[in-house]
Amino acid sequence: MSQPAPADQAAAEILCVGSELLLGNIVNSNARWLAEQLASLGIPHHRQQVVGDHRARLIAAVQSASRRCRLLITTGGLGPTPDDLTTEAIAAAFDTPLQERPEVWADIEAKLASRGRPPSQAVRRQALLPVGASVLPNPTGTAPGMIWTPVPGFTLLTFPGVPSEMKAMWRTTAAPWLRQSGLAQGVFASRILRFWGVSESSLAEQLEDLLASANPTVAPYAGAGEVTLRLTAAAADQGAAEALLEPLEAEVRARTGSTCFGGDEDSLASVVLAGLRQRGQTLAVAESCTGGGLGAALAAVPGASDVFLGGVIAYANAVKQQLLGVPAELLREHGAVSDPVARAMAEGVQRLTGSTWALAVSGIAGPGGGSPGKPVGLVHLALAGPRGCSSEGVRFGASRGRSWIQTLSIGESLNRLRLALD
Amino acid sequence: MSQPAPADQAAAEILCVGSELLLGNIVNSNARWLAEQLASLGIPHHRQQVVGDHRARLIAAVQSASRRCRLLITTGGLGPTPDDLTTEAIAAAFDTPLQERPEVWADIEAKLASRGRPPSQAVRRQALLPVGASVLPNPTGTAPGMIWTPVPGFTLLTFPGVPSEMKAMWRTTAAPWLRQSGLAQGVFASRILRFWGVSESSLAEQLEDLLASANPTVAPYAGAGEVTLRLTAAAADQGAAEALLEPLEAEVRARTGSTCFGGDEDSLASVVLAGLRQRGQTLAVAESCTGGGLGAALAAVPGASDVFLGGVIAYANAVKQQLLGVPAELLREHGAVSDPVARAMAEGVQRLTGSTWALAVSGIAGPGGGSPGKPVGLVHLALAGPRGCSSEGVRFGASRGRSWIQTLSIGESLNRLRLALD
Repeated sequence: MSQPAPADQAAAEILCVGSELLLGNIVNSNARWLAEQLASLGIPHHRQQVVGDHRARLIAAVQSASRRCRLLITTGGLGPTPDDLTTEAIAAAFDTPLQERPEVWADIEAKLASRGRPPSQAVRRQALLPVGASVLPNPTGTAPGMIWTPVPGFTLLTFPGVPSEMKAMWRTTAAPWLRQSGLAQGVFASRILRFWGVSESSLAEQLEDLLASANPTVAPYAGAGEVTLRLTAAAADQGAAEALLEPLEAEVRARTGSTCFGGDEDSLASVVLAGLRQRGQTLAVAESCTGGGLGAALAAVPGASDVFLGGVIAYANAVKQQLLGVPAELLREHGAVSDPVARAMAEGVQRLTGSTWALAVSGIAGPGGGSPGKPVGLVHLALAGPRGCSSEGVRFGASRGRSWIQTLSIGESLNRLRLALD
Repeated sequence: MSQPAPADQAAAEILCVGSELLLGNIVNSNARWLAEQLASLGIPHHRQQVVGDHRARLIAAVQSASRRCRLLITTGGLGPTPDDLTTEAIAAAFDTPLQERPEVWADIEAKLASRGRPPSQAVRRQALLPVGASVLPNPTGTAPGMIWTPVPGFTLLTFPGVPSEMKAMWRTTAAPWLRQSGLAQGVFASRILRFWGVSESSLAEQLEDLLASANPTVAPYAGAGEVTLRLTAAAADQGAAEALLEPLEAEVRARTGSTCFGGDEDSLASVVLAGLRQRGQTLAVAESCTGGGLGAALAAVPGASDVFLGGVIAYANAVKQQLLGVPAELLREHGAVSDPVARAMAEGVQRLTGSTWALAVSGIAGPGGGSPGKPVGLVHLALAGPRGCSSEGVRFGASRGRSWIQTLSIGESLNRLRLALD
């Protein structure tokens, strides 16, 4: 293996132990949580690993980490069953014997007694720690962890895999210890900017020089229609880190214009609702191919009810006619997926509910129902407002599938209203 | 590093690339999904790693994997931006130049054109692959992966980090390729059973002896309201593995009765739609606190339109009155969150659409709007059908938040209709 870069010497790694992770039975939420904690402490973190409950592979993973990093956080494998091997493997990795800690065993006995359980030899294994290791107390469960520096410049912290126990131990003991450890390289501040109507690649072209910056960094991430940028700054303290972010955010917003719809916890729906609330205006929806998803996106935002009145799910053509008053001849002449029908749907629900604005969606989400003239992925989006009603056909393409087309239709529809409010 | 154990020679590893994973911005759901797929193919999998978008660390991770395992699956870093380094780093790890693939570039251009976007130089990078690598086609997105054996006995498969693209590529190309690869050690058969209306812990108590079985295994997993069991059997061939699963599935179904609503790709919505389709019956919805989410769950199922007619999103009380004909005195006397109003909503939408069945939801999703008598999490669910209409108040509790309450309301509502069809 090549020599690690100097920066790695100061970095942390996470090692999660558990065959259930390798079988895909559970998602590794512990790694995500620990990564967030390390970032907020300003401790650089360059690698995560998962290995099973397997002695030789555990020993190899710990030994190789000790040559790469200064801090190794492990989770899992501290329990009482024979497949819990983490403590034993760590001791073996550094040729160190295990030793029973009387104070740990007393604590385990007291916890079991309070739950009405007799102590067992299996549980007693949990009182064993390598000679020289400090106890990392477990306030809620029976398995303690350790804080141990087996070789100079390399420290291990071990945690159980049970998320609630790991978090309690982190907060009570590990985080305060790490803050004093000298491993932190300043503090990180981070902000997310959210975009609609621009692809990840064209955003990257607009911001090419900023994406190359080392501090603060700008990292793009593409979701379903939405693209996000994460701005991260490292500095000696929180104020200095925020001060690095501010001009960067202003520069990104200036270059990207109206494609940037918000930041952090915003969604297109929350931004649209806030804009309407400010104006004292209301909104209704008429949905065909999204089947209620547009309304659900609005209703997902707490407090939506002062702006969002509701609407009609006009999945069948009969519902478009009977509830929304879409004329039968429009449906006959143009088909349900057309601008005239989308406009009639928006105007219909606006009239029915008395809303200021109305959004309508009529399209072909597939996989069936497409034709050469009206392929899967064609969606007509109408917007009715105080100044009239307009509609446009958009082609999302068939390749990404039904759920993707529905998600893009919802976002694109909300984005049109957002831009109309500007 | 110590020599790998012989079993490792045949094993697979997963390498996920992305600084967003190291910062804890997202949970590594790709690793879980891939781990499940490897298990179902019978390919042993001994290690997962996560590294950032960092050239030197990527090269080191790929090189060390090549000395340990026979198959490396990577995700992430195939996009068009400068921080997408996976392909380049893999080529560099084996001193191999990159080469543009004309057929890949033509495919990218065609996909961009169908979305009305011009091709860009940034995107063109995605047509580069190491000399000697085969294209792993991406049916839905622009970034293809590769299948490459850079040194004897070690093969790499690369995937983008976007889960939908990764899954489509896996199913279309990678899984068939791996089945022929000779990497499988025996065969795994696996089945998922899905439950509603039972907790993970009480399911575990009902099945305690089965959960302890070594082959086939039974692993429970709790989602939002839904609990799943994964049944997995290992055997020499597919027929033998399936034969192990069959009596186990029958035993689980016999013990759990009607709480088991389906398996594998089923959802409550797909099961309800199939049941109605079989009877030639139709369904409409009237939604308050779910805001369209119940309709969206039905519309998520391909082919829903022959059963699901649509409905009314009656978020505001005025919409409940004007569109659904809910009497003002019912709203005054009982409040919107009550059995009489939920019943009037269901009967209203059934009358309006002429549907056989109608579901109505009216509740308090929070965080605001609760009172001692009607706390956050109280939801009234009505079901109107050929034999009349009934409604019931259900308390989901406030602690898990708005989205959880909305999701449970949708599932519980669909589940009531499912049980009524039995």
